[in-house]
Parts: sequence; C-alpha cells; structure tokens
Amino acid sequence: MQRRDFFKQAGVASLALGAGAAGIGTARAAADHQWKLITSWPKNFPMLGTGANRLAELIGELSGGRIQVKVYGAGELVSAFEVFDAVARGTAEMGHSVASYWKGKSEIAQFFAGVPFGMTAQEMNGWLYHGGGLELWTELYARFGLIPFPAGNSEVQMGGWFNKEIKSTADLQGLKMRMPGLGGEVIRRAGGTPVSLPGGELFTALESGVIDATEWASPYIDLASGLHKAARYYYYPGFHEPGTTLEAMVNRAAFEALPADLQAIVRNACKAINQDLLAEQTARNPGALRTLIERHGVLLRAYPDDVIAELKRLTEEVVSESAQKDAFSRKVVASYRKFLQESKEWSRISELAYLQARDQG
Amino acid sequence: MQRRDFFKQAGVASLALGAGAAGIGTARAAADHQWKLITSWPKNFPMLGTGANRLAELIGELSGGRIQVKVYGAGELVSAFEVFDAVARGTAEMGHSVASYWKGKSEIAQFFAGVPFGMTAQEMNGWLYHGGGLELWTELYARFGLIPFPAGNSEVQMGGWFNKEIKSTADLQGLKMRMPGLGGEVIRRAGGTPVSLPGGELFTALESGVIDATEWASPYIDLASGLHKAARYYYYPGFHEPGTTLEAMVNRAAFEALPADLQAIVRNACKAINQDLLAEQTARNPGALRTLIERHGVLLRAYPDDVIAELKRLTEEVVSESAQKDAFSRKVVASYRKFLQESKEWSRISELAYLQARDQG
Repeated sequence: MQRRDFFKQAGVASLALGAGAAGIGTARAAADHQWKLITSWPKNFPMLGTGANRLAELIGELSGGRIQVKVYGAGELVSAFEVFDAVARGTAEMGHSVASYWKGKSEIAQFFAGVPFGMTAQEMNGWLYHGGGLELWTELYARFGLIPFPAGNSEVQMGGWFNKEIKSTADLQGLKMRMPGLGGEVIRRAGGTPVSLPGGELFTALESGVIDATEWASPYIDLASGLHKAARYYYYPGFHEPGTTLEAMVNRAAFEALPADLQAIVRNACKAINQDLLAEQTARNPGALRTLIERHGVLLRAYPDDVIAELKRLTEEVVSESAQKDAFSRKVVASYRKFLQESKEWSRISELAYLQARDQG
Repeated sequence: MQRRDFFKQAGVASLALGAGAAGIGTARAAADHQWKLITSWPKNFPMLGTGANRLAELIGELSGGRIQVKVYGAGELVSAFEVFDAVARGTAEMGHSVASYWKGKSEIAQFFAGVPFGMTAQEMNGWLYHGGGLELWTELYARFGLIPFPAGNSEVQMGGWFNKEIKSTADLQGLKMRMPGLGGEVIRRAGGTPVSLPGGELFTALESGVIDATEWASPYIDLASGLHKAARYYYYPGFHEPGTTLEAMVNRAAFEALPADLQAIVRNACKAINQDLLAEQTARNPGALRTLIERHGVLLRAYPDDVIAELKRLTEEVVSESAQKDAFSRKVVASYRKFLQESKEWSRISELAYLQARDQG
C-alpha cells in the first residue's frame, strides 16, 4: 500500500509499474533494513520470547516492511549473557534483555532494570520517560555504542522459590540462591550466596541442587518454567524486583543509519511493547498463581516483617555504595532516590491509599 | 527520506524526479491524509491538551508526514461534550476525550473510562489489552461508526475539592458536586447532586458557587486549573476514578481509508501515548501536590473509613444495575468484574503487599 500511496502522492499513478509493482507482494524480501534481534530468553518463551517476537513484528508492521527483524532465542546466535557485547559489536542490530545482567560492564546499569525496595512498574516508567531516567541510561549505554529503550516490565515480582520456609534471616545463611542484579548483592550481605543464571537454566539448576532456591519472575513466567516441580514454597512480595524494566538495546550505528521516520518507529515500537508486556503480565499473573496453588499445591508464604526490615537495611547499604563508584553513578543514584522518595510520599495518598481502601471491609 | 527509500527499493533511483522531488521538503503540505483531532480539553492544557498535541505529532512523525493531524481545543471546532458526535459524523477524523462523558449515548460506555473502587491504571491496561476489554469497547463504539483506542491514564485520582470537611456521609447531603460518570451516580445515591461540567469550566463554577465541590483529576492537573483558589480541603483517595483511561476515538470510515501500515501507526501511536501520559502523571503529581500544600496552604484530608464503606456499598448497587440494562451491558460488567476480582486477589500479594512492605518501618 505504501508504494501505491507514494505514486498517488507524487502524481505518477499512471506510471507503468512493471518490476516495481511485483515488489508489493514481496515487501519482506525487499526490506531496506534486515535486522537481527537477539534475546536472553528461550525462543518463544511466554511474555519474554513472545514479547521479542511481537516487537519484531510491530517494527515490520509500522514500517510497512521497510525494516525486517528476525528474532533469535538465547543460544541460537549468542548465549543469554552475551547479548550486550554482541549488539555493541554489531553481530546483531538489536537485543532484548534486562540491564541487571550487565553488572560486569557497569554496576550502575542495574539501576535501569530496578532496585530492591525501589520503584514499581508505573514509577519506573514515570522516572524513565518523564523523570530523566532514560536520558541517564542513554548516556551510559552510549559509552558502549548502544541505545537503550524500555521494552517490557514484570510488574511486582514474586519473592522466589524455596525448599524450606524462611522464618528469619538465619534461614538465608549459606543459601545458594539465583538472584541477579542488586537483589543478589543484598542476598549476599544477608549471608546467602547469589548465583547468576539465565532463566532457561533455572529449573535444571534447582532440581539438581546446583542452587537451593531461585527467584525468576512472576507466576505467569514461573509456571511456564516449571519451577513448582523443583520447589514448594513460593514467597512474596518480590522485594528485590518490584517492577523490573526489560530493555531493547540497539546498535548505535545501525540506528543512526535509519531515516528519521524509521528511528521514530523503532523507538515507539519499543514504547508500545513496554506497555504491552506489562499489561500481559497483569492479565496473566492472577490465573497463573491460582493454577500454581490449586493445581500444583504450591505453598504461598509472605516474607516475615523482620526479614523484610533487614533486607531493606542491607539494600540501603548497597545503594549507598553504588553511589560512591564515580560521578556518573552518583548522578544516577541521586536521580533514582529523589524520584523514589517523592513517589513513596505520593503513593501513600494515591496507589497505596487506594488499594487499602479498595481492600477494606 | 521515505520517497528516496522507495526509489532505492524499487530500483528506479535513476528516475528523473522533477516535480515529485520538490515534494520531499514539503511533506506536510503533501500529506496524504489531513486529519482534525478535536478534544474535550482546553487547548494546550497540561497532560490533556499537550497529550493530544503529542499524539498528533507522533502520528505525523511515525508516518513520515503522510498523515498530518491538526489539534483543536474544546470550543474551537465543537464544544467539549460534542466530541463523540462530531467524530461519529465525520466533522473530525479523530477525538481525544474520556468515555465517562458519553453516558447519554450508552451508559455502559462509562466502564471503559473507569469504575469507582475498580481497576487501577495498570489493571485497566491489563483488562483492555489482554483481558478482552478493548474488544468489548470496540464492539460498542462500532454502533456509532467509531473505533476507540486507550490514549492516556490519570493514575489514581484525588477525591476532590471541598469547602467543608467530609466527616460522614451526612456531609454529602445536598452537596452540588461536579463528578461525571459512575462516580456521579454514587454521589447522587449518597444524597448529593452530581453535576457534569467540562474541566475548563470547573474553576468558575466552584468559585461562583454554582457547585459546592468538585473533583477533577490529580494534583498536576488540578493545580493548573487553579482549583485551590476556590476550595481548601483536598480529599483522597479518588475512590471514584482509580485509573481513568482517556480515549482516542477515530471515525471508522477515515480509519478504514488508511493503508495497513498507517492504521498500525495510528493504533500504536495511541498505545505509546496511553503509556506516556500515565508516566507524565506519575512524574508530575508528587511535586504538584507538594506545591499545593506548601505554597498554597491546601489542607489534605482522607475520606473517613465509614464514608468509604458506604460509597463502596452504593457503587456495588450502581454496577449491578448497569449489568441489567441489556445483554451487552451484562457482558461488559461480567468481564470487568471477573478481571477486577482476580486483580484484587493478585494485588494483595503483589502491588499492595509490596507497597506496604516498602512503606513499613
């Protein structure tokens, strides 16, 4: 349709189309830009892999086929934890992952995924899009030749899967628990041993005893991973990931080679997907949790108040130390903390006050 | 760039461009589709009017200028409450408003804006995009030759502005209060007199005593309206509008005249704006509330628990009666209630549990 529009617009509708017209039905083959999108997720995995698929399709749809994006699951082209480097060096034009995996590149990167006891999904979006967060993230990734875009959110996650009850922080001592990002560092200070593993490897690691416990995400995603077959206690709330932002990273040179309208299409496709994946989580988690409890006999447990209090104290230590690395880290932590503090006060008379009123009686 | 891309793609780069080439620098003048976007908001009003402006710009940007959208404030082309009819009859191709204004067209339309004690912004997006809500909304608006898209959200609103304290439901007796939608009906049953007025008329109505009290939206929007100059008590939480979805409505014939890529662009521009306006609210409300309290001496008050309980009981009446109008209304109410009930249960271990844990100590 786009080509026909052009001819109408240019007043050359009567032109004999010949070979050009044949291209209308083969827009994919004739794409101006053939992109690879590599991900840290198993191919077609619910919400994560399917979300990357939808992002690719949406870019194709909005561009009328001018950009064609082919999606690769973790391990197909590069492994889950190689996505950052591979997009930076141009092996792929685009990646879908989460910034908490890139601690080895930059510790402060983790803040753009999320912070324990930090912002919810809605607050993250406020900070990123209208509170200066995305500008800071863009500044950081520019050092690596990457451009970041928020592209999905887990909403408040679950606290994780355990084979014993957590009655006090003593129960965390010596525990080998998969938890990436800043949450992992909090677990370490609480006496545990954080392990970093991609999502696709969690079930086997937990079942074989390589790890004692794991967090992954939310009921929808955890159910699909089968984690309930390897642990019976399911804790809440996910203090460590209250609204983790997924990322789409784009190779800077590839992005800058696009005309302005296609740049806008990539940027806004990510924006639409950012919201769409959050909405998918919100719609699917309640049913998945019910399935886990009613069909699979999972035992739901709340972290005790004193465990929460201690983890919060340790989080404050970790965040304060993050701010001391360098001037840029200090700037990110200051921006994050200011937004979070204001959001907490506002939440007490808006989201939190409302949810309490709704739940009352 | 788009035209040049086409020639490259079609292999006719050597074509002498002549008059066609001159069009490259004048894409706006040469737009294939010149659309009018009429709104229910004062022109350029923060978040609402500026949000409509951003929606128009985004459609232009994503389409490389093939669609040009001109925005009209309330009263410029039609009045605030005439938007629905004007887009339906094709006076404008597009409108930006809120479905709670169209009770006179269809009572059930109000559910697509929001319901007292109902879903939050995040839950509304879950229901609309992944819970069947938007399909139902689309089915309803099709009767009027319109296509609806979610296009903004207020997050949890404030409860409203009063010149006296609300200590019991007795204080609502005889109160003339601006409150549209289902919340207005709840106020009526509580003994008040709901009044429907567009946002641009609230300050004058409140200051002159035409109304005794008013709700409008959130601190960011209320501050811009100057409502603190006409009332001193500011109540929370906004039980009546816990996450009001704004709407973009498009004239069906105008939409169907677009090629597939431009249809996708309009749909997804609305999706990006839906998230963007919510993020703007989340980022701006905390500071605006502080300004209202610290600079303007506004007195913040919580609705008493027994008032909340009574308003909730009345809401249940109103919602149950809405379900009895006809088969379609019954379907909408059933879908809404099921999603809400599941969200409430899930929220108790996710969003609500997390916010309580974050706030603890």
